[in-house]
Amino acid sequence: MLSARRLLVPRLSRCYATAAASRVVDSSSFAGGNHTPYFPDEPMGPSMLTNVPGPESKRIIQRLDQYQDTRSVFFVADFARSKGNYIVDADGNTMLDVFAQIASIPVGYNNPAFLKLSSDPAFQTALANRAALGVNPNKDWVESVENAFMRVAPKGMSNVFTVMCGSCANENAFKTAFMYKAAKRRGEKDFTMQELSSCMSNQAPGAPDDMAILSFSRGFHGRLFGSLTATSSKAIHKIDIPAFDWPNAPFPQLRYPLHENEAYNRQVEQASLKEAENMIQNGKKTIAAVIIEPIQSEGGDNHASPEFFRELQAICKRNDVLFIVDEVQTGVGATGTFWAHEAWNLPTPPDMVTFSKKFQAAGFYTSPHLRPAQPYRLYNTWMGDPVRAMQAAAIVNEVYDKDLLQNVRNVGQYLQTNLQQNRKIESVRGQGAFIAFDLENPAQRDKFLLDMRQLGVNVGGCGEKTVRLRPMLTFQKHHADILLDTMDKAL
Amino acid sequence: MLSARRLLVPRLSRCYATAAASRVVDSSSFAGGNHTPYFPDEPMGPSMLTNVPGPESKRIIQRLDQYQDTRSVFFVADFARSKGNYIVDADGNTMLDVFAQIASIPVGYNNPAFLKLSSDPAFQTALANRAALGVNPNKDWVESVENAFMRVAPKGMSNVFTVMCGSCANENAFKTAFMYKAAKRRGEKDFTMQELSSCMSNQAPGAPDDMAILSFSRGFHGRLFGSLTATSSKAIHKIDIPAFDWPNAPFPQLRYPLHENEAYNRQVEQASLKEAENMIQNGKKTIAAVIIEPIQSEGGDNHASPEFFRELQAICKRNDVLFIVDEVQTGVGATGTFWAHEAWNLPTPPDMVTFSKKFQAAGFYTSPHLRPAQPYRLYNTWMGDPVRAMQAAAIVNEVYDKDLLQNVRNVGQYLQTNLQQNRKIESVRGQGAFIAFDLENPAQRDKFLLDMRQLGVNVGGCGEKTVRLRPMLTFQKHHADILLDTMDKAL
Repeated sequence: MLSARRLLVPRLSRCYATAAASRVVDSSSFAGGNHTPYFPDEPMGPSMLTNVPGPESKRIIQRLDQYQDTRSVFFVADFARSKGNYIVDADGNTMLDVFAQIASIPVGYNNPAFLKLSSDPAFQTALANRAALGVNPNKDWVESVENAFMRVAPKGMSNVFTVMCGSCANENAFKTAFMYKAAKRRGEKDFTMQELSSCMSNQAPGAPDDMAILSFSRGFHGRLFGSLTATSSKAIHKIDIPAFDWPNAPFPQLRYPLHENEAYNRQVEQASLKEAENMIQNGKKTIAAVIIEPIQSEGGDNHASPEFFRELQAICKRNDVLFIVDEVQTGVGATGTFWAHEAWNLPTPPDMVTFSKKFQAAGFYTSPHLRPAQPYRLYNTWMGDPVRAMQAAAIVNEVYDKDLLQNVRNVGQYLQTNLQQNRKIESVRGQGAFIAFDLENPAQRDKFLLDMRQLGVNVGGCGEKTVRLRPMLTFQKHHADILLDTMDKAL
Repeated sequence: MLSARRLLVPRLSRCYATAAASRVVDSSSFAGGNHTPYFPDEPMGPSMLTNVPGPESKRIIQRLDQYQDTRSVFFVADFARSKGNYIVDADGNTMLDVFAQIASIPVGYNNPAFLKLSSDPAFQTALANRAALGVNPNKDWVESVENAFMRVAPKGMSNVFTVMCGSCANENAFKTAFMYKAAKRRGEKDFTMQELSSCMSNQAPGAPDDMAILSFSRGFHGRLFGSLTATSSKAIHKIDIPAFDWPNAPFPQLRYPLHENEAYNRQVEQASLKEAENMIQNGKKTIAAVIIEPIQSEGGDNHASPEFFRELQAICKRNDVLFIVDEVQTGVGATGTFWAHEAWNLPTPPDMVTFSKKFQAAGFYTSPHLRPAQPYRLYNTWMGDPVRAMQAAAIVNEVYDKDLLQNVRNVGQYLQTNLQQNRKIESVRGQGAFIAFDLENPAQRDKFLLDMRQLGVNVGGCGEKTVRLRPMLTFQKHHADILLDTMDKAL
């Protein structure tokens, strides 16, 4: 298969250092799918002038470090010069970007549709007049809701609650679940005086200490106090921070490739489901909701089967527990469907689906029956950002206009097939172009990431020894070939 | 004083319904301070065509209610037609806005400086390329940090951590405090294996259950799980949501006007301070930080004296507790200084100062010695929003170019003096133009707010029976007169 790829695809990366500027893409040479580059004027390949971070990046990092902790900074970007799938850094290095601002860039740097939006008077009005959407939504807000969120709403989900970030999305989903569960417990009765007064001093019964959210080991759901409690990907994120005494069930630790380990994996998933239901039924707290990622991202790109998720939903249903799908990283097309959970063929929709990152806007899908009986309980000052919602609508247009989901499926298939041939990497797994593989150990993984960056391809890690590919939806076969060839060099 | 005002100021509101369109502001007739209108083309006064919400607002609210809970919506805005201190609604009603998107509009609707920014290429680049600032800050990010945040940094505070909203700001400040306190407790030692493993299942010692944040009764610090725990303004915000077992000390319940009740208030403040120190020293948990608002806003615009805050900081210092000032609502000029806490004359800076709302960008000021020893502990995907930081820089420019702090002090003084003459309202209190007063009971307050809106002045409530004025920094004497005259009619 690797040789097939090499026969069919021009080996751009072999010569990009010398010929990148003058080469012309020969679209007839691609193996299938969408042949036309989405960005005709994007660079032909990486072009490296210095090490990364280079001297100019270092100078800016040093200046910034006076004010902010910069230990996590890879390099300083020059977004004005970045284009499509290529990021240019402050030293003029041009890198193919397969990390994309931690999976936050949906349709390429300086996408013309995004730039055009900037000169739209309605967009400028939204920018210059920050609405408190719960008090004074602008008259075109309802159109943003329809054009951005409802147009791609998971089937059967008719409501959306918008906030400012992914952690905020998950925490408001948790609040919704607690209010819903408490209301069911309370029945027709009103709040008691004891509840109303005890909650003011953070005590039960008003602030219930017998309810919890069930998450899964190695899951990542955010870094604020509620979302961090549900997170268990890395100890360094959690240590020294008080947490609620909420449980996490074992996420199935599957063997890859999935199709070669079906029997074993099925067993592991069944054990995980059994333990999750046991914790729901026999744990010390009442579980209001289960939260899970379709693919555990920060925790190491851990997969589970559609059957697993369908059975988990069934467990939730029969135990009267809400089922929250965290699509903050998997959502907005990365897996080849707009939402990753579409691949599960659930018999009924999840109760809530949270989003952020690539959608630019954050929030969660929900249903009218989950609205609290009283107003102002699920509320805040801004209630989301109209500017980011307008961008979300532009993203949805771009996804459909350019058939980007089909592109993701094509390039994802191509990448997965080729990566599986590579004997120097392990445990290749993916859904669409949301792909990961392991190296032998953390040190080798870290070295690989650094080497790739010096060779002009920006990739990120996750878990212990995993490399995660987070291409934009505009990542095409010619980009995949550069990635694959550069990997050959780096390994 | 009321009559003096009436002699000196043209009674715009008396005739705005008929003559608003043709009147010209006579700047020579103002009593002092800044005579020139900041917005020469803003409406001369309110102009009401329908009740609020009118039929068009209602139609849009009904359409929006399919997707989102609209019970909190006052009316639908038409921001494109709004200007300066005036908001226009979907029915064409023009209202003087003294609520300003819950105190989120700093320098007027469609401020020319904001609109100009929209066509700045650097701004459009930031909009079209959402940075993960912890990984790839753009090369001009450091300039935004300097021009927006550092230019107005509270004296002695050199670092800033940026996030997406006010709740996020407070929660990250809490995390900073817990990490700092835990590191002090741990000394030179590294994390233990027991800490690293226990935190992964939300258990002590890794997730400490013996540390807490001390807040004050009636305080509001946000609505996510950590920030909501520190909030105690209204039971309806907290009920049914699990909370940490963190304490709150009694916020002094002062009598107004302050200058007539000095002895009593001093006593109340001393009792509050004594109890706060007692809770720090003898409470069941180690207090990592105290958080307090300069004026408790959502909780009813409750004031305390500069002495109170200075003594509270001294208590924090002698008990090794960090002192966090929550300026999410009070910050960015509303009280006549850029930060409300400047009025306290603290001998040393607070440990952290949080901000959001009017600054458009959210985050907190801090110091390098509070950076965690390890990277990635105080971290997230976006780490703030470069677009909002650029707007924050524009706001800072506007504040200094137009001498808006002086304007706030002038108009605030004028408003406070005149309100204190009004016998139909109680407990007038304020700092700059951040002013509140009480009506007799909640029903009268709610009726007043509705009546004012029908008369063309948009005001908000807080606490039980309080009206809070949250004018923009561009609110001038001629606006104050309209507000005062409309109040006379409504009462």
